[in-house]
Amino acid sequence: MNASADGQRLLTELDTLASFSESSSPAVTRIVFGDMDLRARAYLKTLFAEASLVVREDPVGNTFARWVGRNPSLPAVATGSHCDAIPNAGRYDGTVGVIGGLEAIRALQRSGFVPRRSIDLVMFTSEEPTRFGIGCLGSRLLSGDLDTSAGEMLTSGGETLNTVRTAAGFAGSLGDVRLSAGAYAAFVELHIEQGPLLERDGLDIGVVTAIAAPASLRIVVEGEGGHAGAVLMPDRRDAFTAAAEIALAIETCARGTGAIDTVATTGVCEVFPGAINSVPSRARLEVDVRDIDLARRDSVLEGIERACEDVRARRGVAIRIEPINSDPPARCAQEIVDAIAAACDRRQLRHRQMISRAYHDSLFMSRITPMGMIFIPCRGGISHRPDEYAAPEAIGRGTEVLADTLAALAG
Amino acid sequence: MNASADGQRLLTELDTLASFSESSSPAVTRIVFGDMDLRARAYLKTLFAEASLVVREDPVGNTFARWVGRNPSLPAVATGSHCDAIPNAGRYDGTVGVIGGLEAIRALQRSGFVPRRSIDLVMFTSEEPTRFGIGCLGSRLLSGDLDTSAGEMLTSGGETLNTVRTAAGFAGSLGDVRLSAGAYAAFVELHIEQGPLLERDGLDIGVVTAIAAPASLRIVVEGEGGHAGAVLMPDRRDAFTAAAEIALAIETCARGTGAIDTVATTGVCEVFPGAINSVPSRARLEVDVRDIDLARRDSVLEGIERACEDVRARRGVAIRIEPINSDPPARCAQEIVDAIAAACDRRQLRHRQMISRAYHDSLFMSRITPMGMIFIPCRGGISHRPDEYAAPEAIGRGTEVLADTLAALAG
Repeated sequence: MNASADGQRLLTELDTLASFSESSSPAVTRIVFGDMDLRARAYLKTLFAEASLVVREDPVGNTFARWVGRNPSLPAVATGSHCDAIPNAGRYDGTVGVIGGLEAIRALQRSGFVPRRSIDLVMFTSEEPTRFGIGCLGSRLLSGDLDTSAGEMLTSGGETLNTVRTAAGFAGSLGDVRLSAGAYAAFVELHIEQGPLLERDGLDIGVVTAIAAPASLRIVVEGEGGHAGAVLMPDRRDAFTAAAEIALAIETCARGTGAIDTVATTGVCEVFPGAINSVPSRARLEVDVRDIDLARRDSVLEGIERACEDVRARRGVAIRIEPINSDPPARCAQEIVDAIAAACDRRQLRHRQMISRAYHDSLFMSRITPMGMIFIPCRGGISHRPDEYAAPEAIGRGTEVLADTLAALAG
Repeated sequence: MNASADGQRLLTELDTLASFSESSSPAVTRIVFGDMDLRARAYLKTLFAEASLVVREDPVGNTFARWVGRNPSLPAVATGSHCDAIPNAGRYDGTVGVIGGLEAIRALQRSGFVPRRSIDLVMFTSEEPTRFGIGCLGSRLLSGDLDTSAGEMLTSGGETLNTVRTAAGFAGSLGDVRLSAGAYAAFVELHIEQGPLLERDGLDIGVVTAIAAPASLRIVVEGEGGHAGAVLMPDRRDAFTAAAEIALAIETCARGTGAIDTVATTGVCEVFPGAINSVPSRARLEVDVRDIDLARRDSVLEGIERACEDVRARRGVAIRIEPINSDPPARCAQEIVDAIAAACDRRQLRHRQMISRAYHDSLFMSRITPMGMIFIPCRGGISHRPDEYAAPEAIGRGTEVLADTLAALAG
């Protein structure tokens, strides 16, 4: 067996997928259960059918395309990623793991390889938190991190997840999404690095050993509104300037750990009522904190709490901190790390072990199956932007390493 | 002649007007040319007709309801205010000057007074900047501060002012809005104080002597986006934290003049792309600066420029400052100040001279006619909030002082 990726076909399919976008090229916006997401799903299912894969969709829209193995009763090996894209994003985040996973299967098929275990290609629903405020929705439900209550608790523009998914054509109980711990023998995700290390060091492949621990929270500041011309400065309890202090304190906390791996971001700031001549009465921040070290990450969260308390006391505003999620880090399975490294060596690719500072559906899949990740370089480490870019050769190499790894795991 | 306001009727009409709202009571939201604005206009025109006033609407929707005087060829005396309301505002800002102005005319009619000059009640279009980003749209056009180019330059959600006003039923050239300098003999506006001074000192009426000089600007910060998990802290050029520093510097500048009359507000902050897991690439602030002293106000604007330059140099972001407007202060006409004070004395009302730190259509009317303003107390000085409140007795007293003042000016 010597699986070889069809680079041209990979690119064409990535291009087509990028065309299903709510923003103009090169920017890609594909919000889960939106029209473009549904059209992208339809396109992918056509490709899956062409590759003779058996497709199943679960009640939250996770899509499983199975290459049935010689022994279908054995737990399958799985690969996959996501296709949703945050507003104004690029075309490689997630999609490389879906189209690349498909091409890895097709490359194995072309090579004459017949797997003992079935191989599943999984497209996860809503890895991005854009619509429902929580990342990895599909894999959280698959792994039991979320239960059926999510259907009514999670909302988008006032509509529940259950309403939105049903309108998009995904019926049935969310209770049927969860997979048993033995459902898969292994899960491997191919992804762009979303960081600068591989490119900087001239490497082809990153063999992920762990995924950093992400935490996210919402901070709501309640001050006192009023007319911008009339409320004197000493009398103000301006919710936005209070929130601005908090955002700067968050940045300072992350910079202050002394570790390069600590990052904290205030990506959302909404000001109410949001009129130029009105003192802000309320501000809402959404904050993302990550580290590979759980204790260090939690020290940043404590620093944010202290900063909020200081701002509250000094400015006379009320501040509510609402945790959105706080997930522990995940370790990759040694057998998968070894299989990926062996594939790289066999193909004479330069590789290194690394941790993932972005988080992925793999984080949740690790709860029900041995997990591994294959990283490929992306230009400048840039992601979540229209100029996100991975070279065709890099995608091809990642796809071939994935094919070898799947072959090794599926036997 | 002894004009007496019908307080019950005033309240009923203010209540009805407040019911035309895009938000639930007690909050009032009435965006210019929206459905609720158009319904409010229709209601007011019914009231104008019941009072036998002759109604004219100009191409931007400024509405003039005229009580024709004994000598219609003389320049008229005018009163009036606005009925639009920013999101989540109260029910007294502007409306007291329209309903109160109407009741002042009706009170004069009931008293048997017949004016020599005609008396116009003016309802100005879009005193609030909510929809088109600039305050006092109607009075700016009336006074020649804006010309016909505004019709294409000002936009709302991608549509030009000309498109929006035409769709709302206001046709014709904006060039026909402007009034000649001799069109009115005087203009007097009744308004809630939107500040705490009258209530604090137990006074009935504020006789305005000048309107503070407002300036507003837009600040756009362009940084560099990226994945919140992947871009290391030292590599970031986060547009939002840069904007947060600017907002805090603006607050510090306003507090630093040493004068209680300096105020500066960042009422709008928009963050792009606005996703929790994305480093902000762009932030947009809208800032309002006011002072009764033009030089002091301009020193704050210079301080803001210096702060932006500092943030730019330190954080490696690009910052664009776009002035929205910068208007000089206006002085009230001595003859009107005297007429208002005389009316207060005659009615044994406690009054004081004061400046207006909020700005009003009167600021622009002062460019084409002698201008004055009558303030009544509002609870806690609160305005632009749902709990904005003026007591019925206070509105009644303001209305009667306005009636006396109009009678004195119209002869």
